[in-house]
Amino acid sequence: MPRYKITIEYDGTNYSGWQRQEKDPSIQEEIEKAAVNFLHHEITLTGAGRTDAGVHALGQVASFDTDKEFTNFALCSAFNAWLKPQPIVVIDAQKVDDDFSARFSAIERSYIYKILNRKFRPALMENRCWHVPQELDVDAMRDSAQIFLGKHDFTSFRAAACQAKSPIRTLDEFTITKENDMILFHLRAKSFLHHQVRNLVGTLKLVGEHTWTKQDVQNALDAKDRKAAGPTAPACGLYFEKVLY
Amino acid sequence: MPRYKITIEYDGTNYSGWQRQEKDPSIQEEIEKAAVNFLHHEITLTGAGRTDAGVHALGQVASFDTDKEFTNFALCSAFNAWLKPQPIVVIDAQKVDDDFSARFSAIERSYIYKILNRKFRPALMENRCWHVPQELDVDAMRDSAQIFLGKHDFTSFRAAACQAKSPIRTLDEFTITKENDMILFHLRAKSFLHHQVRNLVGTLKLVGEHTWTKQDVQNALDAKDRKAAGPTAPACGLYFEKVLY
Repeated sequence: MPRYKITIEYDGTNYSGWQRQEKDPSIQEEIEKAAVNFLHHEITLTGAGRTDAGVHALGQVASFDTDKEFTNFALCSAFNAWLKPQPIVVIDAQKVDDDFSARFSAIERSYIYKILNRKFRPALMENRCWHVPQELDVDAMRDSAQIFLGKHDFTSFRAAACQAKSPIRTLDEFTITKENDMILFHLRAKSFLHHQVRNLVGTLKLVGEHTWTKQDVQNALDAKDRKAAGPTAPACGLYFEKVLY
Repeated sequence: MPRYKITIEYDGTNYSGWQRQEKDPSIQEEIEKAAVNFLHHEITLTGAGRTDAGVHALGQVASFDTDKEFTNFALCSAFNAWLKPQPIVVIDAQKVDDDFSARFSAIERSYIYKILNRKFRPALMENRCWHVPQELDVDAMRDSAQIFLGKHDFTSFRAAACQAKSPIRTLDEFTITKENDMILFHLRAKSFLHHQVRNLVGTLKLVGEHTWTKQDVQNALDAKDRKAAGPTAPACGLYFEKVLY
């Protein structure tokens, strides 16, 4: 039975997140519902990452099985015809081997977090960034971000609901750039804990506003206690960027 | 009587454009209406440029007179309190000299035009870009764009409704960059004709898809006839970026 891998861009604002829920509409459910219209059978998507409510994706990846054969273009087009006009678009599709899993075959995931750092609220980026009115010290945040690079116990930065067996993760990139008023956090790792990116950004924001020092950040990591770290940054600033296999 | 200059960011999608209209809501009207609430008198805004329906602004500028005195921060905050939740935000305010005009004192205006160049429609940039599915040759467009640099008679690229006395304009910059799937056109001039940016981009798109050669572009410019040039690119891809004084 052919297995396909699809890459999806979405605006997470009006969804309960990636994963199918009892009640509220999820991205996974909308794509699975779209598929039934042209596959004429139900599918279950395996996603590369479970994005939370309000989190966006530039390149979420999911895999599924079907007994139908498609060209890559035809499969994307069929999904998009049925997903329209929702802000969920299948931007790529590929036939993959039987043992491929969008979740378990991933060797690297990357996220971008966007902070609009100016006095007044966004007009064009509403629901697409975290608006922080007080000026943030980007150099100080960049310096403290170095603490998180490499292999660490990220217990202080994982959600209480996190289902991962181990709190150990290896962060391969944590760079911070600025484009006009927008501060961009770029993170790469094989995998992330639940809320890890948002908790790291929420903690670095304390450094950016000079509430915390680099030593405070080190202490938070060392404490291995969620209560020792900073607050969770809002979902709307987070983008699941891409997955490597 | 104090004169103020305000800088405005807006999402033009649901407005009839900058300029006040008989019927449909315009950006100018919404800001003038907001002002009455805290100035307690009517104002008339002079805008740096008249953006069309659906065109966005990162830094439109307008000037107006009032007998009240404000700090820059207080004036922005007052406007934004009354403009909320509309996607129109006053991001800067400054007291200026009596002879300042947002329109006539401008020495340079800049625009950005965004084309999303990929097979499938945008999820995150809907209404914020022109979606062109066929692959465009950026180098060819960049080469042809050189034709428009400097002082020219832009009759072939002005709207029939254009009210400017002269079709002569001097284009100081026309650069084209690419960021992932997004092609960005950057244009700078003292002033632009009505639809000039959109007509230039619509014409270069013909070059990008290899329908037109560089010579065809030169012929269109030389013809001094709107019918000789390419179609008008959609409003949703255009951003009024900033104004220098």
